[in-house]
Amino acid sequence: MPLLVQKYGGTSVGSKARIEAVADKVIAYKEQGNDMVVVVSAMSGETNRLVALAQEINPNPAGRELDVLLSTGEQVTIALLTMALHKRGYAAKSYTGIQASIITDSTHNKARIKSIDREKIQSDLDSGNIVVVAGFQGVDEQSNITTLGRGGSDTTGVALAAVLNADECQIFTDVDGVYTTDPRVVPEARRLKTITYEEMLEMASLGSRVLQIRAVEFAQKYKVPLRVLSSFEEGEGTLITTDDEADEIMEQALISGIAFNRDEAQLTINGVADTPGIAYQILGPISDANIEVDMILQNVSADGTTDFTFTVHRNDYETALASLKNTAKQLEAREVSGNNRIVKVSIVGVGMRSHAGTASRMFKLLANEGINILMISTSEIKVSVVVDEKYLELAVRALHDGFDLKSEN
Amino acid sequence: MPLLVQKYGGTSVGSKARIEAVADKVIAYKEQGNDMVVVVSAMSGETNRLVALAQEINPNPAGRELDVLLSTGEQVTIALLTMALHKRGYAAKSYTGIQASIITDSTHNKARIKSIDREKIQSDLDSGNIVVVAGFQGVDEQSNITTLGRGGSDTTGVALAAVLNADECQIFTDVDGVYTTDPRVVPEARRLKTITYEEMLEMASLGSRVLQIRAVEFAQKYKVPLRVLSSFEEGEGTLITTDDEADEIMEQALISGIAFNRDEAQLTINGVADTPGIAYQILGPISDANIEVDMILQNVSADGTTDFTFTVHRNDYETALASLKNTAKQLEAREVSGNNRIVKVSIVGVGMRSHAGTASRMFKLLANEGINILMISTSEIKVSVVVDEKYLELAVRALHDGFDLKSEN
Repeated sequence: MPLLVQKYGGTSVGSKARIEAVADKVIAYKEQGNDMVVVVSAMSGETNRLVALAQEINPNPAGRELDVLLSTGEQVTIALLTMALHKRGYAAKSYTGIQASIITDSTHNKARIKSIDREKIQSDLDSGNIVVVAGFQGVDEQSNITTLGRGGSDTTGVALAAVLNADECQIFTDVDGVYTTDPRVVPEARRLKTITYEEMLEMASLGSRVLQIRAVEFAQKYKVPLRVLSSFEEGEGTLITTDDEADEIMEQALISGIAFNRDEAQLTINGVADTPGIAYQILGPISDANIEVDMILQNVSADGTTDFTFTVHRNDYETALASLKNTAKQLEAREVSGNNRIVKVSIVGVGMRSHAGTASRMFKLLANEGINILMISTSEIKVSVVVDEKYLELAVRALHDGFDLKSEN
Repeated sequence: MPLLVQKYGGTSVGSKARIEAVADKVIAYKEQGNDMVVVVSAMSGETNRLVALAQEINPNPAGRELDVLLSTGEQVTIALLTMALHKRGYAAKSYTGIQASIITDSTHNKARIKSIDREKIQSDLDSGNIVVVAGFQGVDEQSNITTLGRGGSDTTGVALAAVLNADECQIFTDVDGVYTTDPRVVPEARRLKTITYEEMLEMASLGSRVLQIRAVEFAQKYKVPLRVLSSFEEGEGTLITTDDEADEIMEQALISGIAFNRDEAQLTINGVADTPGIAYQILGPISDANIEVDMILQNVSADGTTDFTFTVHRNDYETALASLKNTAKQLEAREVSGNNRIVKVSIVGVGMRSHAGTASRMFKLLANEGINILMISTSEIKVSVVVDEKYLELAVRALHDGFDLKSEN
């Protein structure tokens, strides 16, 4: 019998009515002849309520105790969903993280799963139960309750699918799949039938926040077919799988999607001596200030000095600029400049591995629209450009059109 | 170092401010040189909220899932109290029922504790921690979460005190001790310094609802000194202990207190044949209707028939009367009568064991006030009478005066 692991997030179980709807949906899949394992999050708002309760009592709560507190959120949901399944006449059994023996390391609030005991769950499945598991939580080897951090329920789902050798891990969320780009920018954006793990990782890290990056990495590592579907609408969603699987399904398109990130800022230091360790001297103080650096470019000038440019989140722009000006004095740099009105636009696709000229086709499409490119960065399956923020929508639409993403891939 | 186990109920931890107050109180005892184990209930209202949530989804939830749901209530409290202790600079660690290895049988919603692993808690105490344990909950041998039923947190406290060999188990509640009788009826009622387990059991089952009966039985069985104190006021409370311990402290008075129960009703069937099995034929249908019977009296008449009288809760009066009339027809009884305007008043005291005439002194005191006694029932340390409800206050005051309960015992 095929085995599905389904995960429903906080919005999908956010009220009595929604929990009842999830029960109906799970039963429909069960009736189609699947064994079912269901992973649920806390009801929407519950985790925030509990965090606020903790903050009132101790603004800096110990990680161990915060996890004891937060893990009650999913525990409530598993009990309620199991009761709803019982009411409909189906055998079902709930599991907390401890009960499912989801063993993690001891990093409270962002623990990593080390192992899951499949025996108990498999035995319940074999005797016809729908198994309902609390997402987001586990237990370390000293029986301390741990949580996996925000979005950790996706990871619980993928990990369970891996150990149970499930046919598919289905993540139900409030969007109906992964799109070629944000439909709010390009109304013609199209839902992808398939996407590879690598592409999904690039899309996710570039701002298309459908799935937790860790869950995708986990799925890639254990080759778990992962599907994103809507809790609220019917549909096939998007299947995230390996290159080979995706190829089997259809000829892979050149690029799969266009990601973008609005909240970027760019900083440049010109004319510093091109000596070993210069990058660390420039970026060390930035990272000491807990500022994350995204793109980094270094050009060599003819005079033996170098120009150094990097991007940060727009919120960190002022702090980073002050730090860089200070560094510039010490290094006797010629000049420091910055721009916090920029955005990053990226094309992502495993197809570009085997097709030369994808980057130049991108640059031509942007040039046709008169869009000036400020920075370029490339990886094996991605090309990113930084442009003035006023060009964001124009650039995304030009690329979506130019790479023919509207038609079925 | 002396070890105290303290239990705080739902009202005592019902808000952020009250949890902070409990933290201060626990620390004060710790600073006096005690090792501290603290058992807490769910914040007041929380258990009812969770039950209502379950009812909405499934009016008849499975016991296993209800326990998964309800046990989150105490789990929230242990985390918050531990955070409050940390904020005050004290080492503290929380334990759920599973983590404390509170092993119970598998009777969901009213499980009984079978064992507790003392090792982990003792080791935390030895390293200076205040240990905070979730009351009311445990786990069966198959790792299913169980709950002990309403008031079960008292039992958790006593059980922990027993296995840890604590010097005292202190139950903090919203009254400041056990009184000679209800101060709302007799304003001169006096808080008892000590009372024996047996007396407390008689007082509790007779309607002085300060402690759960099971917790007192447990304390008696394992000889755990049990103290009832107020969460909100300073004071010594009432120590519940053995005969010998109580005697050591002071000369035991003749009686310790006067209990009463307003919600009684009495039913009588007259003139039934006095044959073997007649009691079962009369009470079987009552018990089949899930009605609890309290006092039972049977008199033999001269003519070989018997009269049979029993009391039930007033809410069950009509149902019991209908059932009894039906039985009377089958048994060809002479008559059925009933009275739902009665109350039960009892004197309780281990002192009456060694003092003859306590019962007749009670009857004389009631006769002096012109109070007619409808039924009498006695046990080794208790005499109960049933009287018309209009005499309740008069009877309780006459007995409180007559047995000299106002003065220090």
